[in-house]
Amino acid sequence: MKLYSYFRSSASYRVRIALNLKGMSYDIVPVHLLKHGGEQLSQMYRTLNSDGLVPTLIDNETADGQAVLTQSLAILEYLEEVNPTPALLPATALDRAFVRGIALSIACDIHPLNNLRVLRYLVHELKVDESAKNAWYRHWCESGLAALEITLARDSRTGKFCFGDTPTLADCCLVPQIFNAQRLKCNLTEMPTLMRIYQNCQELDAFIQAAPQNQPDAEA
Amino acid sequence: MKLYSYFRSSASYRVRIALNLKGMSYDIVPVHLLKHGGEQLSQMYRTLNSDGLVPTLIDNETADGQAVLTQSLAILEYLEEVNPTPALLPATALDRAFVRGIALSIACDIHPLNNLRVLRYLVHELKVDESAKNAWYRHWCESGLAALEITLARDSRTGKFCFGDTPTLADCCLVPQIFNAQRLKCNLTEMPTLMRIYQNCQELDAFIQAAPQNQPDAEA
Repeated sequence: MKLYSYFRSSASYRVRIALNLKGMSYDIVPVHLLKHGGEQLSQMYRTLNSDGLVPTLIDNETADGQAVLTQSLAILEYLEEVNPTPALLPATALDRAFVRGIALSIACDIHPLNNLRVLRYLVHELKVDESAKNAWYRHWCESGLAALEITLARDSRTGKFCFGDTPTLADCCLVPQIFNAQRLKCNLTEMPTLMRIYQNCQELDAFIQAAPQNQPDAEA
Repeated sequence: MKLYSYFRSSASYRVRIALNLKGMSYDIVPVHLLKHGGEQLSQMYRTLNSDGLVPTLIDNETADGQAVLTQSLAILEYLEEVNPTPALLPATALDRAFVRGIALSIACDIHPLNNLRVLRYLVHELKVDESAKNAWYRHWCESGLAALEITLARDSRTGKFCFGDTPTLADCCLVPQIFNAQRLKCNLTEMPTLMRIYQNCQELDAFIQAAPQNQPDAEA
């Protein structure tokens, strides 16, 4: 497997965690989102990923030859299907819907609003200043995580991790989002459930090795 | 089944299409996103859906009694699992990843940026005027759909619908997005593949009956 990734991209980070949890080996191909006008926007990269976003996963070992996969959550589901152990989705349809719901509340309702291209539009097109840009970031991140804290705190299925006592797709999404939230100095003091789960994840090698600072393309 | 829905919400629209395609009966509970300060933000609704977003699906017929499901794509996957025929996902892992990738490129990279709460933040917090707000809407919608046009036009799996000749989760997401794009007067002239698929969908009862204008809470 070959993963086109940027060390700080939280969508790439999700896939790195899942590959590590499943013990699948992969090579990182760094895509620098800031240098050279954004390598993700190059014509070469766009032949793989017309959205011009990371990550892209190349699977060289399919029955039909090389396959190109985009969208982090579609990639996580694919990894789960081709390599089901250890399972990152629970056994019942209802519990899978719970885990997917958490993953999607991060991937649809928090992360896209704080993506690099969106922050750039705010600054360059809407002439928003630094402080209003940061307030935007924190607004969506804090309000989204606050809703998630309520969801997880009141559900009896929440355990050491978002669902039970082993990591799922939900944790693959939560950890990169908390990492981003801390980097942008969001207020996480009233999110004890999320922070407890985050800390539990940080004790696992799969999460540690997927972290931005441990990537080949990491920068200070 | 009971679906908390708003006629014009494209996330609700996705679920209505899928329920119709699968021939599952359901009652609509209208949630008015604009009246009464936004019914989706009421304390009562938030006990079901802490995100304060539509849709929410209530399944009264599970083995464990009543289940509450949120996040439209998690609901679509749930419906597929509990009622697999007709299938809205293809047979192989790679093809499922393709369909999910299309659905997610709409659900993560287009729709969240143009959601009501985001447009409100632009106007109320960032003091963006009507014309800049509409330019924002069209920017994300047109650039996202243009990338999707390339993805679908170049992939041999695209048929009468996004994948092959029967509707999938991808079409459940595409149709509401095109509906929104037309409503906000986006330029869709260079998207022949998307528009062809859209028209094919519009010939099916499942899509017609799910359309905003055919909902019990529809307004002029």
